[in-house]
Amino acid sequence: RINPDRLWDSLMEMAKIGPGVAGGNNRQTLTDADAEGRALFQKWCEDAGMTMGVDTMGNMFATRAGEDPDALPVYMGSHLDTQPTGGKYDGVLGVLGALEAVRSMNDLGIKTKHPIVVTNWTNEEGTRFAPAMLASGVFAGIHTQDWAYDREDAEGKKFGDELKRVGWVGDEEVGARKMHAMFELHIEQGPILEAEGKDIGVVTHGQGLSWTQVTITGKDAHTGSTPMPMRKNAGLGMARVLELVDEIAWSHKPHAVGAAGHIDIYPNSRNVIPGKAVFTVDFRSPDLSVIEDMEKRLREGAKKICDEMGLEVEFEKTGGFDPVTFDPTCVSAVRSAAERLGYSHRDIISGAGHDACWINAVAPTAMVMCPCVDGLSHNEAEDISKDWAGAGADVLFHAVLETAEI
Amino acid sequence: RINPDRLWDSLMEMAKIGPGVAGGNNRQTLTDADAEGRALFQKWCEDAGMTMGVDTMGNMFATRAGEDPDALPVYMGSHLDTQPTGGKYDGVLGVLGALEAVRSMNDLGIKTKHPIVVTNWTNEEGTRFAPAMLASGVFAGIHTQDWAYDREDAEGKKFGDELKRVGWVGDEEVGARKMHAMFELHIEQGPILEAEGKDIGVVTHGQGLSWTQVTITGKDAHTGSTPMPMRKNAGLGMARVLELVDEIAWSHKPHAVGAAGHIDIYPNSRNVIPGKAVFTVDFRSPDLSVIEDMEKRLREGAKKICDEMGLEVEFEKTGGFDPVTFDPTCVSAVRSAAERLGYSHRDIISGAGHDACWINAVAPTAMVMCPCVDGLSHNEAEDISKDWAGAGADVLFHAVLETAEI
Ligand SMILES: NC(=O)NCCC(=O)O
Ligand SMILES: NC(=O)NCCC(=O)O
Repeated sequence: RINPDRLWDSLMEMAKIGPGVAGGNNRQTLTDADAEGRALFQKWCEDAGMTMGVDTMGNMFATRAGEDPDALPVYMGSHLDTQPTGGKYDGVLGVLGALEAVRSMNDLGIKTKHPIVVTNWTNEEGTRFAPAMLASGVFAGIHTQDWAYDREDAEGKKFGDELKRVGWVGDEEVGARKMHAMFELHIEQGPILEAEGKDIGVVTHGQGLSWTQVTITGKDAHTGSTPMPMRKNAGLGMARVLELVDEIAWSHKPHAVGAAGHIDIYPNSRNVIPGKAVFTVDFRSPDLSVIEDMEKRLREGAKKICDEMGLEVEFEKTGGFDPVTFDPTCVSAVRSAAERLGYSHRDIISGAGHDACWINAVAPTAMVMCPCVDGLSHNEAEDISKDWAGAGADVLFHAVLETAEI
Repeated sequence: RINPDRLWDSLMEMAKIGPGVAGGNNRQTLTDADAEGRALFQKWCEDAGMTMGVDTMGNMFATRAGEDPDALPVYMGSHLDTQPTGGKYDGVLGVLGALEAVRSMNDLGIKTKHPIVVTNWTNEEGTRFAPAMLASGVFAGIHTQDWAYDREDAEGKKFGDELKRVGWVGDEEVGARKMHAMFELHIEQGPILEAEGKDIGVVTHGQGLSWTQVTITGKDAHTGSTPMPMRKNAGLGMARVLELVDEIAWSHKPHAVGAAGHIDIYPNSRNVIPGKAVFTVDFRSPDLSVIEDMEKRLREGAKKICDEMGLEVEFEKTGGFDPVTFDPTCVSAVRSAAERLGYSHRDIISGAGHDACWINAVAPTAMVMCPCVDGLSHNEAEDISKDWAGAGADVLFHAVLETAEI
């Protein structure tokens, strides 16, 4: 078993970097806080006897040598970046749980045939630079590095420039590493495990996602002296599209999910009718045809709404991934580890996207989930218990040991 | 008659300061650009033989002496600050039209019994610091200066600190000046004069306004893994309230106006269901009871919408003024000046708020309006012709000469 106290202490130590405003974290990717978190993680890895490699996307790989020099490594990890008002566990548990597994191997003098690599993927959250899971996506060949370097944050700063600024451009070619397998531990970010009192979710599939950035253009005009019939109110057009997004998500049985988390209004002045509204619609379902249907109905419905109001509308797909089926052998390793350790468990579909979803395209991959309070995440109040964290890390530890061959 | 070419040249010269991105201006109040615009205006006033006084709200008063040392001055002016994506004429025409009137008095060797004062009121637009017409409001005793100094912009900077920073805190006590009368020339910012082919609007009344800042609080949560029935989506609640605002405005016959120009969503991340939405509803009507009805229906309706969605809602009145009836003698001076000069004219109600609306509470006041293309303002494409500007300034000139007694 791993040491849950040591794991918890490391989680609390990391949470001191990039504190939020309400007990959580704001350690967004490629900020100074992110750089500080990376340096602490590197130090911890080196203290545990590992050697750090960094690729040109800033992905970090800490290696514990194996006994067979020809065997491909078994990877485990997640991400250290957070949402602007994020929790202490989303991503971080997967990185520090993997580190704890290596520390426990050291304590117990365990040797594995395959090397073990603990990973921190850059920009999983996708808040500062869309899309999410950017660097694991480049690793898996989904995006090119040039395209990723060109992604811009809200202030127009580019990913590539910010990676350089914080000093985390490594020298390894991204995606050059080959993997025997990869495992990711993550909090569920949903309510199912807690509601059913299960310790462990054995993740068999991941939901697919589609991000559509919608730009509605009307005409800036005075809120006082412009008669109602002459208005082209882009904000009102947006309101109607937001209602449509909600209707579309509910209309699927079982329901899919849909919302807009990001909304910008221009010029955003109290006495100017909005001339432009830019917002991103996030649709998800485990069923690809449902995602496609939702995208289509959004485009058609928003076009109709805007036409009737004399507004222009444009759509840009800014992120997306298809539903994922994880590797059956890796999934079995997770399920049998939970079984062997006596943890209650159930198979589950991930509601969120994860780096593991991309890596699954280039290596056998699976995920371990643990519950979180009220299913809440992407919120500073995100919470888990030390027991849940310990159980998740235990299952990760055992699944990896089985796969890396003791 | 005034000199329309000189007026136009001055308008174009001022528009070089704080240029916008699409041919208009971004010279928001108490920015460096505003300070530069003020300095240019001061220089022009001094070149025209006037002496500048500045009060503790940064209001500027350039005086041309009168023949009777005991006679109260006749004021004319408007504001030099603009919207973030504003036009070149909103406010500016009223200040530089007044300056042109004085330049023409000088050219023609006209002496008046009453002194003449050309005024630039601070922060008319209210975009950077709500409410609009802040400094004329303090002058008229509607707000206290302490309260005005405490108003904050979106970055948390205070009005008082920014006034100091740009170096425009004067030494005159605000509101100490007494006025014989005050006249304001302004573009209509609406479509009526252009549509009817009238040169001049004789402003008899001003619409009343109510700004309500609405804060809806839900719960930040993951857009992917939070099931639809568990969501508390503040953005969706806002969408429903925006629809209600539109319905309320249309429901009055003749219709009132209503919209939200300012909208902020938190944490504004693509994969976080909005936990908070803050937006300002702008309702207007020439009828006070209609404004009161709209405010009431907004509060009740938004409460109902939010209750049904499990959201919290709070309201704060952040600005407002009652409908205004301008001084009959001043209004007659405007009407007879237009008549005498042979300009086509009609009586009109101002759709927007103006400094004149506040000053009307402490001095006999009236306004002159000229058309603007498509009724468009609060937009960089705001446009007027040199003839329209010239006619407006001519009527201002004559109304002021009549009131100041040649
Ligand atoms: N796990 C997680 O929150 N990932 C971010 C990508 C997503 O929105 O699903
Ligand atoms: N004239 C003008 O745009 N004033 C700003 C105050 C208002 O919104 O009416």
